[in-house]
Amino acid sequence: MVDLMGAPGTRWGLGTRLAQALLAAAAIGFMASTDDFNEVTAFRLLVTAEALQCLWSLALAAVDVYALLVKRAFRTPRATTIYSIGDWVTGALTFAAASGSAGITVLINDDLMMCSENHCPSFMASTSMAFFTWFAIAPSCLFNLMTAVYRVQRA
Amino acid sequence: MVDLMGAPGTRWGLGTRLAQALLAAAAIGFMASTDDFNEVTAFRLLVTAEALQCLWSLALAAVDVYALLVKRAFRTPRATTIYSIGDWVTGALTFAAASGSAGITVLINDDLMMCSENHCPSFMASTSMAFFTWFAIAPSCLFNLMTAVYRVQRA
Repeated sequence: MVDLMGAPGTRWGLGTRLAQALLAAAAIGFMASTDDFNEVTAFRLLVTAEALQCLWSLALAAVDVYALLVKRAFRTPRATTIYSIGDWVTGALTFAAASGSAGITVLINDDLMMCSENHCPSFMASTSMAFFTWFAIAPSCLFNLMTAVYRVQRA
Repeated sequence: MVDLMGAPGTRWGLGTRLAQALLAAAAIGFMASTDDFNEVTAFRLLVTAEALQCLWSLALAAVDVYALLVKRAFRTPRATTIYSIGDWVTGALTFAAASGSAGITVLINDDLMMCSENHCPSFMASTSMAFFTWFAIAPSCLFNLMTAVYRVQRA
């Protein structure tokens, strides 16, 4: 179990974290490129959630870089539990924000057909990036939850 | 592990399933009480997702009733995996639909202040019920995933 691809403290784990941070940053960038995103609550939530996601992923990426440099991974039961809870909280926030933004983007685009007055491409790109962030964090969530369950059962 | 509260085939498991089905039905009912919900894609998704959730929960409630009557629970690894996948798929759909509807409800209510022309109380009630459905299915998701992980590790 400890040598699964993508575990904390491995090259794949570091790559996954950096991908999450980059995608979250892209979602913020696309959203911030519009001048009126802050009039919509769901878009503000998206920026907040992705900022939290970006910080969390960068923090764990730093832990991974340190673990690779000193060749020791932090995989005590307490650390795994913290990774797991953090991943689930940020992942759920990202998914909720992406779904909320998708609802509004589809409303503007297909239901009201008001794209000419709005920044539909930016909103869509930002929403897609938020979903991609979620796809990138889902493996970490599952992996850390399984490791936590495994550790609790052995303890 | 097998006698945890809320496991499939127990009274608590049956109660959880019935609660999920009732809450999902309430979400559909509140949404269907408005005459123009089908103009918004996210609200149509909410009704579809909650209908799927309701059918799935009722199906598993029937399995639970049968298990209680014959005093045998279906907890083979294959059955647990099917419960787990179904719970995660319907749970994710419910959460996505609830988040999307919440985004639009907040947009109508707080950002555009167009409640006088819309059915805000019904939309809000439906969105709340969808979130309550998700709160009711989250324990089943976690429980079944943990059981599946546990079974896979013992196999």
